[in-house]
Amino acid sequence: MAIRMYDLCGAEAERRFSPFCWRAKMALAHKGLQIETVPWRFTEKDKLPQPNAGRVPVIVDGDRVVHDSTAIADYLEERYADRPSLYGGPVGRGLARFVQNWTETVLQAGLIRLVLVDIHRHLGPEDQAYFRGDREKRFNTTLEEVVKDREARLPAFRSSLDPLRRTVERQPFVSGEAPAYADYIVFGAFQWARAISDFEVLASDDPVRAWRGRMLGLFGGLAASAPAYGAAA
Amino acid sequence: MAIRMYDLCGAEAERRFSPFCWRAKMALAHKGLQIETVPWRFTEKDKLPQPNAGRVPVIVDGDRVVHDSTAIADYLEERYADRPSLYGGPVGRGLARFVQNWTETVLQAGLIRLVLVDIHRHLGPEDQAYFRGDREKRFNTTLEEVVKDREARLPAFRSSLDPLRRTVERQPFVSGEAPAYADYIVFGAFQWARAISDFEVLASDDPVRAWRGRMLGLFGGLAASAPAYGAAA
Repeated sequence: MAIRMYDLCGAEAERRFSPFCWRAKMALAHKGLQIETVPWRFTEKDKLPQPNAGRVPVIVDGDRVVHDSTAIADYLEERYADRPSLYGGPVGRGLARFVQNWTETVLQAGLIRLVLVDIHRHLGPEDQAYFRGDREKRFNTTLEEVVKDREARLPAFRSSLDPLRRTVERQPFVSGEAPAYADYIVFGAFQWARAISDFEVLASDDPVRAWRGRMLGLFGGLAASAPAYGAAA
Repeated sequence: MAIRMYDLCGAEAERRFSPFCWRAKMALAHKGLQIETVPWRFTEKDKLPQPNAGRVPVIVDGDRVVHDSTAIADYLEERYADRPSLYGGPVGRGLARFVQNWTETVLQAGLIRLVLVDIHRHLGPEDQAYFRGDREKRFNTTLEEVVKDREARLPAFRSSLDPLRRTVERQPFVSGEAPAYADYIVFGAFQWARAISDFEVLASDDPVRAWRGRMLGLFGGLAASAPAYGAAA
């Protein structure tokens, strides 16, 4: 039986943009597991299986419900230990946490200030009201103010990617010769931006963009074939 | 026979401050290998064994000469494969490169602007002349200008440590439950600052400082017992 995964979507059910859901989808594909996704919107908190935290991703595997992308990766690694490893052992697992913390405090924190208003444009009316209220409270200003002057801030954002850039300049993937969970963590952030914004955050000759292209091509083009903006690679 | 390692020192032979040498020393200790260090100064390029790039660390293991901290770690991991692993496998090795690139583009780039002039104070006259000339050319200004207003820049530096801070808040080491090479990469930078500067770069309640204390205590206090400023933990 396929694993069921609740996956954040916009007004269009096929536009899936949560960076955390992309982490989980790539991890499930890495393990070679079949899934069926359930499109889910911000305001459908009561449609999620229990237990949950009102957020996605949530997966249902037989009678197990697991929520939170990190918990899902840990669950898959243990439950499907005979399949390709997401972490490559305890050190790889520990270091994936560092990559995650960099992704959340630097990469996603930078990206949100470039594409926040574009997320809003892709939501249905009910979700738009929720999203504007929640995010404007969080940023203490309007969505439009958050992304203002994004062109001017682009060089600083691109410069903040130096640790990632140097890494994928010198080896094919963040995790080395082959992709693993840390790659999916970083990629989730770029796929999120790409899914809802036509604002290209990477220069055409950026090694990070070449890596993103390699990620888009994985698993038969799983991420490349999803509704998004920009070139598939 | 002990492995010989050429190790950067100041006017005092016992003050060892190169972040790259500290990476190598911690890696050698992790492998449980006995070493004897040869104090080496910036202007003693002709005293290094061949082949070298005029820089340390360089190790001599029997008839093998290996220079560059990354090459040394790779060499030790392969040559002493039966001893505790530095990387924990290919994924851990790949991700250690990401940590290294973060350390060099963010952590060390930030630290140098806090402690550059303190390095100069610990060098002998000949090395001082070399160091001032070389670094002032690199920074295109005086050593004193580089560190000016360092108190004012401290909050931004500390904030740049967020990915590290979150990681060691949630697990004992960068590499997870136990230290591995990525920890030595990051630690080398802090031990460098600590060896030559009394400017405390970490707040007393910073989780990064608690992690640094754990690192100082490893291998019988190898790093804690070296000449340096500040508390041992």
